[in-house]
Amino acid sequence: MAKEITSREENYSQWYNDIIKKAGLADNSAVRGCMVIKPYGFAIWENMKAELDRMFKETGHVNAYFPLFIPKSFLSKEADHVEGFAKECAVVTHHRLMNNPDGSGVVVDPSSKLEEELIVRPTSETIIWNTYKDWIKSYRDLPLLINQWANVVRWEMRTRPFLRTTEFLWQEGHTAHATKDEAIAESRLIHDVYAKFAEEYMAMPVIQGSKSENERFAGAVETYTIEALMQDGKALQAGTSHFLGQNFAKAFDVKFSNDKNTEEHVWATSWGVSTRLVGGLIMTHSDDEGLVLPPKLAPYQVVIVPIPKPLPELMETIDKFEQELKDAGIRVLVDRDEKKRPGFKFAEYEMKGIPIRFGIGPRDLEKGQIEVARRDTKEKSAVAMEGIIAHAKQLLEEIQNNLFERAKNFRSEHYSSAETFDEFKEILEKKGGFIEAHWDGTVETELKIKEQTKATIRCIPLDAKQEEGKCILTGAPSKQKVIFAKSY
Amino acid sequence: MAKEITSREENYSQWYNDIIKKAGLADNSAVRGCMVIKPYGFAIWENMKAELDRMFKETGHVNAYFPLFIPKSFLSKEADHVEGFAKECAVVTHHRLMNNPDGSGVVVDPSSKLEEELIVRPTSETIIWNTYKDWIKSYRDLPLLINQWANVVRWEMRTRPFLRTTEFLWQEGHTAHATKDEAIAESRLIHDVYAKFAEEYMAMPVIQGSKSENERFAGAVETYTIEALMQDGKALQAGTSHFLGQNFAKAFDVKFSNDKNTEEHVWATSWGVSTRLVGGLIMTHSDDEGLVLPPKLAPYQVVIVPIPKPLPELMETIDKFEQELKDAGIRVLVDRDEKKRPGFKFAEYEMKGIPIRFGIGPRDLEKGQIEVARRDTKEKSAVAMEGIIAHAKQLLEEIQNNLFERAKNFRSEHYSSAETFDEFKEILEKKGGFIEAHWDGTVETELKIKEQTKATIRCIPLDAKQEEGKCILTGAPSKQKVIFAKSY
Repeated sequence: MAKEITSREENYSQWYNDIIKKAGLADNSAVRGCMVIKPYGFAIWENMKAELDRMFKETGHVNAYFPLFIPKSFLSKEADHVEGFAKECAVVTHHRLMNNPDGSGVVVDPSSKLEEELIVRPTSETIIWNTYKDWIKSYRDLPLLINQWANVVRWEMRTRPFLRTTEFLWQEGHTAHATKDEAIAESRLIHDVYAKFAEEYMAMPVIQGSKSENERFAGAVETYTIEALMQDGKALQAGTSHFLGQNFAKAFDVKFSNDKNTEEHVWATSWGVSTRLVGGLIMTHSDDEGLVLPPKLAPYQVVIVPIPKPLPELMETIDKFEQELKDAGIRVLVDRDEKKRPGFKFAEYEMKGIPIRFGIGPRDLEKGQIEVARRDTKEKSAVAMEGIIAHAKQLLEEIQNNLFERAKNFRSEHYSSAETFDEFKEILEKKGGFIEAHWDGTVETELKIKEQTKATIRCIPLDAKQEEGKCILTGAPSKQKVIFAKSY
Repeated sequence: MAKEITSREENYSQWYNDIIKKAGLADNSAVRGCMVIKPYGFAIWENMKAELDRMFKETGHVNAYFPLFIPKSFLSKEADHVEGFAKECAVVTHHRLMNNPDGSGVVVDPSSKLEEELIVRPTSETIIWNTYKDWIKSYRDLPLLINQWANVVRWEMRTRPFLRTTEFLWQEGHTAHATKDEAIAESRLIHDVYAKFAEEYMAMPVIQGSKSENERFAGAVETYTIEALMQDGKALQAGTSHFLGQNFAKAFDVKFSNDKNTEEHVWATSWGVSTRLVGGLIMTHSDDEGLVLPPKLAPYQVVIVPIPKPLPELMETIDKFEQELKDAGIRVLVDRDEKKRPGFKFAEYEMKGIPIRFGIGPRDLEKGQIEVARRDTKEKSAVAMEGIIAHAKQLLEEIQNNLFERAKNFRSEHYSSAETFDEFKEILEKKGGFIEAHWDGTVETELKIKEQTKATIRCIPLDAKQEEGKCILTGAPSKQKVIFAKSY
């Protein structure tokens, strides 16, 4: 396995693509903007999914499944929503192919034209609220706390593996509540679940905040977001949770009778994270040698390489460690390949980002030790076989923490404050990252800043200090700083 | 909760629909032929998925994800395949909507017409083999043992919840091998995995066999099937595993160089089970009081109902049992509703098919006992609280076994042998079920029998006795009996 990947400094974007290719995470497909998620990349997503699913269930949510297709007329029912999604969707117009009379293959059968076109879901608020209409009659039917794991399609012009693809995998939660406060609390609860997942599992620090009007989800009253920082100084919106007010309930006429027997419209939230998180994970931790994965999400946490090859006298010990690691709940891979050399294997597992590598040769066996290599720091040390399982367990925790600390330090180094627009532009150009600055609160100003600098408001942080200030562009009064960055 | 459902005798098909509705398994959607899988129904599918996924991984398979869309031209590449699937597919022709100039909503933007139409996958052989072309160069790249969990769309004319829907959820395995024998062995291995899953988890006995040419998958050389029997005497094809020969490798030009450095086409299998299994599960075990679920797949295995309501003095004990059941790995639900009466709750959990119900009232507390009710036999007994967890565990096993035995007995009673066509027709009409009979091996005869009786060959059983006989329709010689039935 050739190890060469472009360095981050040389070409960050190429570095990202190289890692995806060389670590075997994804591949291009024959369909514009759609990727194939390869087994190793999919295993990371499966681990993410398992943890998130557990967290959703622990907070009272259940899974269900709604149709892939949305009747065209549904999209029009919520005015902002259709504005946001109609421009980029896959439209099903026919339901049959037929042999081309000229014998050249198959063509669309014109007689199979649908009466109403179907949209491949870009998100499911409309079809779900059309269903909730039948499910919700009384306050006793509330809250509804439903999530679905699904594929969605948005016809993006510029795509990039994991970060933005035409089809992507995600979860979308859609909840229904009797009161405004309860719905807001739900959207905040999930916002916190997302932040916890990002930081504790992905080891990816995030800023929690709400979106400006301009960046809000199409149809939402409030959008809460978690924003992460990639190594090129650009921000990644990693998950959003929306308080939808009564917009969808009104659009689909979903009412409930409250405990005083009066009819009211239902309050809603929706929230989602997607395979984009895999892109964020890659960009947060990886280095010029390849992928670096936090142990909690790594498909394999420990790889054992027999040196120079799987000799019978080595394998007895290695098989025993394999079993002991498994018993301790550690995901382990033993490389039993007879032909490849250790150096080749080392490079391969470095590329794949396996957190810990055990090297065991005949001399190690004699000395009762193992060569333990950490992927994050690339440190190697000889560790006694006695107690090695506990050591591995502790080391995995240490690596998980180290990656998080490292990413936090990177973010601190790329978190600036700007008082003037010149300063703002200079920081953006020289080091990028998050920049907090005063803003006058208008969409107009936000768009002007974007036009001139490509930076947008990533969020209005929840914990922002209240202070009088002046908008960096217009000088108009502002009460708190908001966070800008260029973003993916 | 009103308990009334149509009885099986009165109207089997309505009984099935009533159970789906009253047990909260699925709902109709606004999209023709697509259903909404409700949380309780989805939880059954999640349990199936978890077990199958484990079994696939234990046999060396990994998951990946391939695009939802298939370029139209791909379908044409394998001649039989396009014949089988072109007639019933959703075709994406455009990628944008626009506001209707007359202000009446949105319409398809004609300028967004795709150069080549995309088909929503009815199955993924074509897009996957087009990808495998890039992944397979040498025998060292083989075997590829990949599965995906996905949604697929087949534009069915007549649909029925779970059993046949336009969109359905499934897994599809697609493997690539260096030799014919290895590919056949793989298709047989999965065939056995499916049979084991059906019998050990679903408690649904199946007959294993191969399909006749007429019933084979479009593009397969051999299709292995598991066939179950529903309570109305109709068969259900519950899972198929296909040996695809080199058909797709040839269609997509996928070759590998073998260890003698000669190029050969790759050998293939594909295999799948779907949400149809949920329909099979319902139809195999349920009765006129509602759903009956085998414990291994039931979302809740034990429900605890405080009698007459969740009084504080009861809840202390109940909370303790809840925790102990959870600790023992048993999925438990405690009904803490204050308002509904026990009778109402009993009917509800009967409808939902929860295998065991614990009833606990103040008098039970005094006596140190629990009223334990089995869903399968409807037997009730007072059981001592001491040792109740072990009792529940053992009872769950007993219920699982009882359901399987009951279903096997039903099948034995509905398994006949016919020597003449008159006898065949009489059995079909009077009791249905599986009928073994001699057949001359031609497609023509199979189609004639189907035309006259609606029965088809469900499979050529793998363990059939070799014996000389005469085809029931034509009298032509036959070497073994095959199995006929009407089917879903």
